[in-house]
Amino acid sequence: MSTSPAPSSAPRFGVNYTPRRGWFHSWYDFDAALAREDLDQIAGLGLDHVRIFPLWPLLQPNRTLIRASAVDQVAQLVDVAAEAGLDVMVDGVQGHLSSFDFYPEWTRSWHHRNVFTDPETIEAQANLLRTLGSALAGRPNLLGLQLGNELNNLVEHNPVTVADVDHYLDTLLAAARTGLGSTAGLVTHSAYDAAWYGDDHPFTPEASARKGDLTTVHPWVFSADCARRYGPRSPQVEHLAEYGVELATAYAEDPARPVWVQETGAPEPHIPAADAPGFARATVRNAAGCANLYGVTWWCSHDVDRSLADFPELEYTLGLFDATGRPKPIAQALAETVAELRAEPRPTEPRTTALALVRTPGTRSISGPGGAYFEAWMRLRAEDVRPAVVLTEHAEDETYLTARGIKEVVRPL
Amino acid sequence: MSTSPAPSSAPRFGVNYTPRRGWFHSWYDFDAALAREDLDQIAGLGLDHVRIFPLWPLLQPNRTLIRASAVDQVAQLVDVAAEAGLDVMVDGVQGHLSSFDFYPEWTRSWHHRNVFTDPETIEAQANLLRTLGSALAGRPNLLGLQLGNELNNLVEHNPVTVADVDHYLDTLLAAARTGLGSTAGLVTHSAYDAAWYGDDHPFTPEASARKGDLTTVHPWVFSADCARRYGPRSPQVEHLAEYGVELATAYAEDPARPVWVQETGAPEPHIPAADAPGFARATVRNAAGCANLYGVTWWCSHDVDRSLADFPELEYTLGLFDATGRPKPIAQALAETVAELRAEPRPTEPRTTALALVRTPGTRSISGPGGAYFEAWMRLRAEDVRPAVVLTEHAEDETYLTARGIKEVVRPL
Repeated sequence: MSTSPAPSSAPRFGVNYTPRRGWFHSWYDFDAALAREDLDQIAGLGLDHVRIFPLWPLLQPNRTLIRASAVDQVAQLVDVAAEAGLDVMVDGVQGHLSSFDFYPEWTRSWHHRNVFTDPETIEAQANLLRTLGSALAGRPNLLGLQLGNELNNLVEHNPVTVADVDHYLDTLLAAARTGLGSTAGLVTHSAYDAAWYGDDHPFTPEASARKGDLTTVHPWVFSADCARRYGPRSPQVEHLAEYGVELATAYAEDPARPVWVQETGAPEPHIPAADAPGFARATVRNAAGCANLYGVTWWCSHDVDRSLADFPELEYTLGLFDATGRPKPIAQALAETVAELRAEPRPTEPRTTALALVRTPGTRSISGPGGAYFEAWMRLRAEDVRPAVVLTEHAEDETYLTARGIKEVVRPL
Repeated sequence: MSTSPAPSSAPRFGVNYTPRRGWFHSWYDFDAALAREDLDQIAGLGLDHVRIFPLWPLLQPNRTLIRASAVDQVAQLVDVAAEAGLDVMVDGVQGHLSSFDFYPEWTRSWHHRNVFTDPETIEAQANLLRTLGSALAGRPNLLGLQLGNELNNLVEHNPVTVADVDHYLDTLLAAARTGLGSTAGLVTHSAYDAAWYGDDHPFTPEASARKGDLTTVHPWVFSADCARRYGPRSPQVEHLAEYGVELATAYAEDPARPVWVQETGAPEPHIPAADAPGFARATVRNAAGCANLYGVTWWCSHDVDRSLADFPELEYTLGLFDATGRPKPIAQALAETVAELRAEPRPTEPRTTALALVRTPGTRSISGPGGAYFEAWMRLRAEDVRPAVVLTEHAEDETYLTARGIKEVVRPL
């Protein structure tokens, strides 16, 4: 039904790479040796990949100036990761990182341009993605090129319609693909949870689940207050990533489209530090029970150093390693879980029972924590049913259901 | 009456340094050898100084992170200028440059802070200026540390009152002075013409003329449409910088306070290219007729390369050198004028006739092109009177008038 890449026989496990020294400001003083230290630590946990985040203003300080040296540093980081034995997903246009929005000056202030709708700004981003893709093409450890991290965090300051977003994503995905050329790399995009849970949010589940080579999900436990609502050790929290994969699968046109849990993490106080190792084990293990899981990429590798100001409190303690480079208990828990899963046979039995979901942009919040659909799914899950999700428009489509291995469709009460 | 430095026996002549390759984006890839090439060209014109402009986001990407490497590059540029035989004024917080506003991410978007009024943001800028001052202190070719380029361009996006501005300037000037320590360097600030001509603009003439070690003026011919209104070869245009010095002198508390024509230039189409050499000669020569002139610093050294997008049209052709590094006719005109002035005795006769100006924040526009006071002064000037400017509050203060050498105060009709 599509050209989606089949999930690899085993899911990938990795981490979002947050440089220990200087956070992403380290791009200003890129040092391959320091990066190598961080990456060796990551590889030492048995993880197989990292996701990396260059900064837009450094790559493209003027609309028509892409700094070759900055592009080269991205390529160098990919190569350093290869030396450490890690594959790499490159997010092109940052954009949003841990509450900070990195915009080049030519989009702000007197030069304000809407990054989603201004034609010259879209073209500039397309040029950047083509350039990055072309520079990275052919590297054997390159997983692919993603447009940018949670682009929809920029919606608040760049008002945009669904049609605008679709045009933007289509244009940039095509540019990234052109850049990569014949390289067998993924081209993807990502959005924070508003795409799945936000009524009338302009980034839609359909855009996430149908554009690009696979679907990325970032099921954070603070979204819709999931952990606060149900508790840090609740089934709802421990199955959140699994649920996110199943929900995303329902929106895909290709029943076998892979879904990547590209960000999940244990933010304090939503997940108290003592609960973090258990949360990591459960999250990864439960997500690994999804047949079409592409992989899980933990957020993040290293704590933000407290010498850096103004991060939301929860951002300081999300690392597997602390700001001095010491592994935290969650690092060990993640490493052990990954090793265990790799040693186990991958579950092959499809989810035979699906819970039907009415697809309505304006009622998306029913699918989020606190929503009726979410809670119905979690009730079924508590009965050990391992439910899938199907859209009601597919609920009587035998071809579709067969392709997914679904034998029974349940309607929520 | 104050501790203002006396004007040097001869005014200084220099240029605002706009790097030929990559404009100010060249800070991202600082290369002392490339800077040296540019600076040697500048020194080759017989100019004695440059004004340089580091970028705030590069110096201070996080509120509590001042990049030592970026500070060091500023110091390196000062040293490279010394090797080229040039003195250097360093503008600390950019801020505004040629229509682009460079703000660190921690002041924008989700983290929006008013750069003039937020206490932590003021403290961060004070830290930056202390750090820069300390790093630069003791360099014999350092003219001083200015807070930043035309800070009042940021008012539009950071609403602020007169009292707020005064507090901001006082705090940062003190920080810059602390940073320089015992170094005999100037500590100054700068504003674009709205400070002088803009009714109720929160940066006041008093702030310009009374804070910091001398007064800086940036009398641009496009302000209040001066060149369009009177013509590019009009007396109003050719005496604009001279008028700016006299106007600034009136607002000073120290009658001998030096005034620096820190920016003036020949923007097309306001000044057609063919008129630019004549404009430069007249501007510099007329300004040099002001007894308390500190110096004239032309804007700018090098044209902006047209491969860089989105600059206002006039910004592309303001250089003494074109984007390939060739000197333009205006470079020769400026060099010759500077050489001539250095060979001539400096005018020592005071301006004995002054035109009285009513000081009212809300009627400042009378002092600008098109304004009644401006036009009255220019009429007197056309009679070869060489008028000074006095505030009406000083018009009968004999001590004050004597200190300035004024014998006759004329009221505008």
